[in-house]
Amino acid sequence: MVLLNVEDYRREARRRLPRFVFDYLDGGSEDEVALTENRAAFDRMKLTPRPLTDVSIRDQSVEWFGQRLSLPLILAPTGLNGLFCRNGDIALAKAAARLRIPFVLSTASNNSIEEVASAADGDRWFQLYVMHRGFADQLVDRALAAGFGHLVLTVDVPVSGKRDRDERNGFVMPFRLRPKTLADMVLHPRWLWQVGRHGAPAMGNMLTAGADPNTQAALLSRKMDASFNWDDLKRLRDRWTRRLLIKGIMHPDDAARAVSLGVDAVVVSNHGGRQLDAAAAPISILPDFNRVGAPLVLDSGIRRGSDVVKAVSLGATAVMIGRAALYGLAVGGEEGVVDVVRLLQAEIDRTQALLGLPRLDAQGQAA
Amino acid sequence: MVLLNVEDYRREARRRLPRFVFDYLDGGSEDEVALTENRAAFDRMKLTPRPLTDVSIRDQSVEWFGQRLSLPLILAPTGLNGLFCRNGDIALAKAAARLRIPFVLSTASNNSIEEVASAADGDRWFQLYVMHRGFADQLVDRALAAGFGHLVLTVDVPVSGKRDRDERNGFVMPFRLRPKTLADMVLHPRWLWQVGRHGAPAMGNMLTAGADPNTQAALLSRKMDASFNWDDLKRLRDRWTRRLLIKGIMHPDDAARAVSLGVDAVVVSNHGGRQLDAAAAPISILPDFNRVGAPLVLDSGIRRGSDVVKAVSLGATAVMIGRAALYGLAVGGEEGVVDVVRLLQAEIDRTQALLGLPRLDAQGQAA
Amino acid sequence: MVLLNVEDYRREARRRLPRFVFDYLDGGSEDEVALTENRAAFDRMKLTPRPLTDVSIRDQSVEWFGQRLSLPLILAPTGLNGLFCRNGDIALAKAAARLRIPFVLSTASNNSIEEVASAADGDRWFQLYVMHRGFADQLVDRALAAGFGHLVLTVDVPVSGKRDRDERNGFVMPFRLRPKTLADMVLHPRWLWQVGRHGAPAMGNMLTAGADPNTQAALLSRKMDASFNWDDLKRLRDRWTRRLLIKGIMHPDDAARAVSLGVDAVVVSNHGGRQLDAAAAPISILPDFNRVGAPLVLDSGIRRGSDVVKAVSLGATAVMIGRAALYGLAVGGEEGVVDVVRLLQAEIDRTQALLGLPRLDAQGQAA
Amino acid sequence: MVLLNVEDYRREARRRLPRFVFDYLDGGSEDEVALTENRAAFDRMKLTPRPLTDVSIRDQSVEWFGQRLSLPLILAPTGLNGLFCRNGDIALAKAAARLRIPFVLSTASNNSIEEVASAADGDRWFQLYVMHRGFADQLVDRALAAGFGHLVLTVDVPVSGKRDRDERNGFVMPFRLRPKTLADMVLHPRWLWQVGRHGAPAMGNMLTAGADPNTQAALLSRKMDASFNWDDLKRLRDRWTRRLLIKGIMHPDDAARAVSLGVDAVVVSNHGGRQLDAAAAPISILPDFNRVGAPLVLDSGIRRGSDVVKAVSLGATAVMIGRAALYGLAVGGEEGVVDVVRLLQAEIDRTQALLGLPRLDAQGQAA
Repeated sequence: MVLLNVEDYRREARRRLPRFVFDYLDGGSEDEVALTENRAAFDRMKLTPRPLTDVSIRDQSVEWFGQRLSLPLILAPTGLNGLFCRNGDIALAKAAARLRIPFVLSTASNNSIEEVASAADGDRWFQLYVMHRGFADQLVDRALAAGFGHLVLTVDVPVSGKRDRDERNGFVMPFRLRPKTLADMVLHPRWLWQVGRHGAPAMGNMLTAGADPNTQAALLSRKMDASFNWDDLKRLRDRWTRRLLIKGIMHPDDAARAVSLGVDAVVVSNHGGRQLDAAAAPISILPDFNRVGAPLVLDSGIRRGSDVVKAVSLGATAVMIGRAALYGLAVGGEEGVVDVVRLLQAEIDRTQALLGLPRLDAQGQAA
Repeated sequence: MVLLNVEDYRREARRRLPRFVFDYLDGGSEDEVALTENRAAFDRMKLTPRPLTDVSIRDQSVEWFGQRLSLPLILAPTGLNGLFCRNGDIALAKAAARLRIPFVLSTASNNSIEEVASAADGDRWFQLYVMHRGFADQLVDRALAAGFGHLVLTVDVPVSGKRDRDERNGFVMPFRLRPKTLADMVLHPRWLWQVGRHGAPAMGNMLTAGADPNTQAALLSRKMDASFNWDDLKRLRDRWTRRLLIKGIMHPDDAARAVSLGVDAVVVSNHGGRQLDAAAAPISILPDFNRVGAPLVLDSGIRRGSDVVKAVSLGATAVMIGRAALYGLAVGGEEGVVDVVRLLQAEIDRTQALLGLPRLDAQGQAA
Repeated sequence: MVLLNVEDYRREARRRLPRFVFDYLDGGSEDEVALTENRAAFDRMKLTPRPLTDVSIRDQSVEWFGQRLSLPLILAPTGLNGLFCRNGDIALAKAAARLRIPFVLSTASNNSIEEVASAADGDRWFQLYVMHRGFADQLVDRALAAGFGHLVLTVDVPVSGKRDRDERNGFVMPFRLRPKTLADMVLHPRWLWQVGRHGAPAMGNMLTAGADPNTQAALLSRKMDASFNWDDLKRLRDRWTRRLLIKGIMHPDDAARAVSLGVDAVVVSNHGGRQLDAAAAPISILPDFNRVGAPLVLDSGIRRGSDVVKAVSLGATAVMIGRAALYGLAVGGEEGVVDVVRLLQAEIDRTQALLGLPRLDAQGQAA
Repeated sequence: MVLLNVEDYRREARRRLPRFVFDYLDGGSEDEVALTENRAAFDRMKLTPRPLTDVSIRDQSVEWFGQRLSLPLILAPTGLNGLFCRNGDIALAKAAARLRIPFVLSTASNNSIEEVASAADGDRWFQLYVMHRGFADQLVDRALAAGFGHLVLTVDVPVSGKRDRDERNGFVMPFRLRPKTLADMVLHPRWLWQVGRHGAPAMGNMLTAGADPNTQAALLSRKMDASFNWDDLKRLRDRWTRRLLIKGIMHPDDAARAVSLGVDAVVVSNHGGRQLDAAAAPISILPDFNRVGAPLVLDSGIRRGSDVVKAVSLGATAVMIGRAALYGLAVGGEEGVVDVVRLLQAEIDRTQALLGLPRLDAQGQAA
């Protein structure tokens, strides 16, 4: 099958991955109202072409704190990437480096901070989950030491969203192999050979000294330190000396407060519809964030290049893609990720041409 | 099948109950427009997470006239509970006592006021239908004598809603066993053994002296005293010396008038879409009731913990669940009810965490 | 099958009638956007119950120019009633007389003005189509002579709507029997015996002197005198000395103009979605007509008793039912019509009880 | 099958054409959101009948720069018409001449400017794509020389829209015959005999001197000169001495700017949903263009006569039809086009009668 768009990669990933893995990747929380609305909100939004502009040269690059991203895309932090592809985190990091876009390594990665740092160049960021403050401090120090450029603090997972699909598939911690899951794996021999035979991928960042089994289990079941609060953010801001992003903000007042505490940029996100199922679609509330006074990143629901342009036209400097990149990872590893991003870039480029928008960072023009 | 949410319990109940019983439980009136809208209105409503709040300790309890409910749930009054489970009313009452939430015994219960009072502890309330004023007075006196704490007067059943599903299944009074119904029962042997073989469950409250056959028949076919009016409410207010709730109010002026007559709390409800099919969804009109000056209870459509939080965030002190609890009752009796409520509590708890809402009764914060 | 609501009668009529006859009865014009919207607009509209009103005595009667209709229903003028039931017009007239509601005989009836006048008592009205002014004048005089009490001038058929279903079924003038139509009839032997074997029902009003074949053909294909205008209305007003209604008005200015010319009442109608497919649903525009200063009748889309109450609550004195009555006619002749109307009356009655609305003509109270 | 409306012609075209040809004709870009919305926007729009107007004589003609179009329809410029019918452009031109409406020959036509000029009379217009400015100048000069009356500059194709259906069918440049495509052709023998056996139709306008292979390839893959801008428009305005239209405008400011530069009329269009999938439906934004001060043409989504009346009622002087005419072309060649347009004319005529609108160019009356 020829893969023409992200949905094609999604379908191909569904064919290749065991059901419980695909559902983990693809699903949302509870009734998947937020997941559905994330797409519907993009589809409702319209863009106005302004033709008769010279669009023979088009530029997708955007400025990001003095540096230039080749396009306004960031590979979102996603956990358990090793389930979709052996050494999935490294594959994503390498793809991002080739594409000259940032890659955000998740706390719940399978490859460790240090592994990724040594295996891939490029603009590496680290995403922080706080299960235990002491361990979080260690992670921060390790990410600093390993040269990660930005820290992305995820704040919308004080507890895990309720993923009924995962529960139904038995994909919960502690993981116990059930006959149905075994059959699921056996029916996907390619995945079994490439990924499954190596066993459950370890939580890479937990294998070093200082990571006790409890913390690892907490991470696997997304049991976070739910007491983490604004004061902790201040302390984190002091500890992390480079750019700090906060991810999972849905109220402009929270964005402003974070910025006032020294946060450099805000990721408006409903976690891809995987946490609060009653959350609004980030794209539908993005205009409320335009007075925050810091760069905005839009996360959740991006499947087409035009979605990226919509986000940028409403004030985002860049967007994060999670599932879109992971479909590519599941289909073709590093190459698959590169293919998906290039496909999105081509769609962005075409959308710019159709809108009369030679440069993406001339914001507001597309609205 | 693992039962992860209320919808799972609904499906399992459908599998276990004869069709005519399930339809009676699950159906609404006429074209089920209200039934559908009750859910759609919840799904349209969005909640805004406020992260970076310490949510390590979360509390679902709410204050209710000086006492503390362990969570803002009340088991709604529902008739014919004996159809779903032998001694269903007692099972519900016991479950509620274990859960430390109120249970409302229906006038149309199969277990009598006195049976329930002696079988179950906890916070028992009594719901009043007025078919005949003299008999209603007796019921009120019996409920007082039996120690029921609140009286819930249902005002939205001057006549029964038109339940076309029940009519089609022949589940109407006087009940006559048809071959199709018999086959329906035989195909559900577990139900037949546990419930059906005992015959049609009697109207428990009618079996005592003072209940003539006409009143019993009127209750079964929901033939109420349609002349019951505001003056009668005053008299009832005088007779019932404890807390009085009024259920089935959809206009804020009626709520205010009831409160001015001494009613203690108002249940905004469209009777789960079982009465007026042209009624609005209670959750969509709840904000209009915020100036009523009495505690509000929201009834109709609750299927997820987030629905409870939505109702509370719009001003309800608590919600009633009817069908949700009955699906549990049909699946597992008392244990099934406890399971469903605990499941809802877990969903509420998780929603609070995701919203940054440690306490539920800090109303308005979630909106 | 037990027939519980109008939709049940519709299904039963579909079973009994040849396809081309059912489609003629049931269909709308073009893409049936108006037909669908007629129902959707009713379903969107909500009513607010006002309980604690004494509704033990409920009255569906309304005042209509000094007389009392037993309920706010009028049997709409419909053509070719002889296709659904032998002597269908007479059956409808007799049913209406028994029900004490008006029946409107169509110009395109199969039984003539005089036949209906001699066969049925009750409140008979006559509906006028103007194919040819001279013949129209004769019809008016005949209706006066035969004691018809009101004249209903239909103004929304200057040409016929485009009924693609009828075209596809070959049910167009001049009618030619096709093998498919023949098979359609043979597969409905009851209809064939009761209706079809008598041949195509004649246009009853055309059989008298003065009706030339051209006029009859024009009527069959709904080829009206498209030049009929406001001046002609004035002349008609002069000729018809009793109550005059105008049917097919969708703009309040037209309603007001008609009233200023002496029209007594206005029927807001989109002809059941059978004429202009781009027309709004009458119920959605009815509030615009409240300053017209004449009684309003709502036509198009009534399928439930609550629809009648909705129309009345928005200012209509009565509603017309077309298809609903004809489903009854097709299923059970005169008895079927009575059954459908009684069913609607019961639904109205129940809706009144649920709304706290003892009398229907206390308008505005239900809104 | 009897063909009653444009949708019938669409279905018949689908039956007759190979899948890859039908998809090219019928499809839109990306997720076909714009394609779907083009129809939905028409269906949502309502028209108000104003009866009691003399509509015995109805006139569909409209004035267009001093001349009279027999109805407000223009055959839109469409490429590759030779795929639907041998010598499709000539067939369209002849049909338009018989119908006394304009036909717009596309730059991407299969019959050349000169062929069409010699084969068909009538009001011929030429549509210009600019792949290469020198060649565009030649086309302009040839169209002038061949007596084409208007030039329509299409501005919404700086690059081609992303047509995933075409990609999936392998219908992309350079075209390579795949087994699946071959099977597709063989399964449509009538098309194969009438069209396919002659081979891929040539780009008629490229066969003359001055057209290098690169330009032809660019045209086939819709690779335009994306640098074409407002200054180029000025130069084109100077070169083309007759009426100039600009097609693909979606912002009123662009329309006004074009008019200020001497453009005579503006075609509001989203290219039938084939370019920017995030574009609004032209009918939904048409009212914004009423102050532009030049005749407006509405393009995209017309399938019913009432759609034409809706566009005219919102201020359009005429509409363009693309797919509607091509379905006719695919089904019956020149006759098929005539049939489709006459069918639309009959629908317009009937809609006028139902609206009380004897003349179409009495704008605003239908709103």
